[in-house]
Amino acid sequence: MSVYETLKRLGIVLPEPAPPVAAFVPFVHSGNLLFLSGCIAKQDGRPWVGKLGGTLTTAQGQEATRGIAIELIGVLQAATGDLRKIKRILKLLVLVNSEPGFTEQHLVANGASALFVEVFGENGRHARSAFGVAQIPFGSCAEIELIAQAD
Amino acid sequence: MSVYETLKRLGIVLPEPAPPVAAFVPFVHSGNLLFLSGCIAKQDGRPWVGKLGGTLTTAQGQEATRGIAIELIGVLQAATGDLRKIKRILKLLVLVNSEPGFTEQHLVANGASALFVEVFGENGRHARSAFGVAQIPFGSCAEIELIAQAD
Amino acid sequence: MSVYETLKRLGIVLPEPAPPVAAFVPFVHSGNLLFLSGCIAKQDGRPWVGKLGGTLTTAQGQEATRGIAIELIGVLQAATGDLRKIKRILKLLVLVNSEPGFTEQHLVANGASALFVEVFGENGRHARSAFGVAQIPFGSCAEIELIAQAD
Repeated sequence: MSVYETLKRLGIVLPEPAPPVAAFVPFVHSGNLLFLSGCIAKQDGRPWVGKLGGTLTTAQGQEATRGIAIELIGVLQAATGDLRKIKRILKLLVLVNSEPGFTEQHLVANGASALFVEVFGENGRHARSAFGVAQIPFGSCAEIELIAQAD
Repeated sequence: MSVYETLKRLGIVLPEPAPPVAAFVPFVHSGNLLFLSGCIAKQDGRPWVGKLGGTLTTAQGQEATRGIAIELIGVLQAATGDLRKIKRILKLLVLVNSEPGFTEQHLVANGASALFVEVFGENGRHARSAFGVAQIPFGSCAEIELIAQAD
Repeated sequence: MSVYETLKRLGIVLPEPAPPVAAFVPFVHSGNLLFLSGCIAKQDGRPWVGKLGGTLTTAQGQEATRGIAIELIGVLQAATGDLRKIKRILKLLVLVNSEPGFTEQHLVANGASALFVEVFGENGRHARSAFGVAQIPFGSCAEIELIAQAD
């Protein structure tokens, strides 16, 4: 099944990339590497505010990172014009807005990781780091940065 | 206007890269990728100590990241011998030393992002992530890591 | 002295890479770049729990990051089948689980940095960022992500 058929089956409509809120761009190509800016978690189009281990549960965090993954796939579409050009999701950097005692960042990050594998299959299997940060712009509960290979 | 003319117009004198304080190097080339070590914010040649949302304001944070950008351009000069070899600033990772309630990391990061665009023009437009961290070496208020393309 | 002779002299037995605890993989190749997932600090095969500036000292943190470096070299071995294919350790991202007042992340990171230079010589000299994070999966005291060049 193609990437687009999978997205359709999952009922996922790719968003238009949000314009950056500052002096940077959503993606940069260098050779066949594609660097994506960090995307923050949103709910109903606005920053999904909260801290894991505080106001948000691990399950909510997973929903939040799944939403970021959809946003990032939207940026990949904008960057390539055709998701079939994405040869590999190389690396995710997953930042989880965490209370000092919350230690399930890896579970939170799985919301995003699982979607990349679901959509891109073997090409979606990536290296990854996940950890807890003190804050994220706009108070969002999670942020993910991505590097992909696009031939 | 060339990169060097712009630097002159802005009154920026590039610093000599500070020797690393530990067992690493300021930059590494790999093909046409150039990986720079994280540089911390300084004031009068010493770590600029403080936390955003605590002792420092967003405007001070912007000044701090602009100073880091100047330091990083000094490293790019040392790495290439000629800044005109920098084909693109690819990605910044902007770490802001943040109190748990401070949520303007993106504004703080703009101090650096704006300078890269001012100095390198279109080639300075980069992907970026910015977030709040619990601490930074020497208590510095910000740290930035950079990947560039140098042909 | 070869990499393997150095490891033997140091009494280091490379571990088998631990299977990822989530939907990601320990490493991904892209051209001659090799992206490794973040590895967390362990003690006796279990997460080494604690915070720097809290229950753990800087010296313990250095021991922890040295242990992560050994784990990462084990992943490099698994990824290449022959460590002599590692042409350069390019970049480390060193995350230190820090109390808000702990500012010696650079010293903690040296435990890993020094080992890479000891094992790989000049090829082990890398760019690096180190900073304090709010938490790390399983409460581990440190986590390191690595990019290498493997020809």
